Order: sequence, then C-alpha cells, then structure tokens
Amino acid sequence: MTDGNDALSQIQEHRAQIDALDKEIVELLNARTELSLAIRALKPGAHMGLYDPRREEEIFERVYGYNEGPLYNDNLREIYKGILKVMKEMPSL
Amino acid sequence: MTDGNDALSQIQEHRAQIDALDKEIVELLNARTELSLAIRALKPGAHMGLYDPRREEEIFERVYGYNEGPLYNDNLREIYKGILKVMKEMPSL
Repeated sequence: MTDGNDALSQIQEHRAQIDALDKEIVELLNARTELSLAIRALKPGAHMGLYDPRREEEIFERVYGYNEGPLYNDNLREIYKGILKVMKEMPSL
Repeated sequence: MTDGNDALSQIQEHRAQIDALDKEIVELLNARTELSLAIRALKPGAHMGLYDPRREEEIFERVYGYNEGPLYNDNLREIYKGILKVMKEMPSL
C-alpha cells in the first residue's frame, strides 16, 4: 500500500467517525430543541418574558466551563449563537 | 404551590436538562474538531485539496438523514454551516 493510499484510508476512517458523531449531535440538538420549546410554552404561566439575555449569557458561560478544547471558547460562542438563533426562531409546537 | 411556581420549577428542571445536553454537545463538537484537524493534516499526503465542497454537501445530506425533528433540515443546515465554518477556520494543530 502506498503512503497516499494509507493517508486516504485514514481520512475515510476519520470521516466515518465524524459521521457517527454528527448522528449523535443531531439527536442532541433535537432533544435540546424539544426542551427549549417546552420552556417557551411554560414561560407565560411563570410570568416570564420569552427572551432572557441573562440566561443566554449563562449558557455561554456554562459552555466555556465544559470546554476542554481543541475548540476555543470564542469558537463555541459562534457555534452556540447559531444554535440559540435557530431555536429562538423555531415555530411553537 | 401556585401554578406560577409550578411552571417555574418545570422551567428550571428543563434548563438543567439543557445544561446536561450542552455538556455532551460541547464534548462531541471538540471530538469532531480533533478528527477534522487530523483529516486536514492527512490531506496533503493523500494528494487532496484542503477544501472539498462535495464532502460538505455529503455532510448536510447525512445530517438530514439523521434528522427526526423537531428541527427542520434547513435549521440543521444553518447550525452546521456555523460548525463547519468554525472548523475550517481553526488553526492547524
């Protein structure tokens, strides 16, 4: 086997692992969305406004606390901004 | 316990579940980043360019295949665009 083929087979193996991670990530994002929509439905009964910037900052801080790298906190902030934006824009169940 | 307190305690419970999911999501995103950086390091040896738009489309298609809702495929595309953008911009290890 040439070195080129060896590198290619390692890439294919890594990509298969990424695909498996993506399956889990999609499941967790959907579970997170369900909880987020349930919270939204409960907020009027708790006399809470729909948008809570303090909770958003708390989420970022927690995410940084979970972070063991190689992503930087700023990278996770960028990814989570996208996640929170999508969840805020979801229609209610 | 009033209804308002009941709604509030349910919100707090859901938020604790979201925090636990975020911990897992952060771990998976970091594991995904490690694999992505390893692939980048292998590409020259496999005579592959660093950017592969076909692989990117394949990732989106796989993600849609994993999707059981409530997120829509377009929502996941938006989130994943952020994830892939961050990973492409990461400095090499």
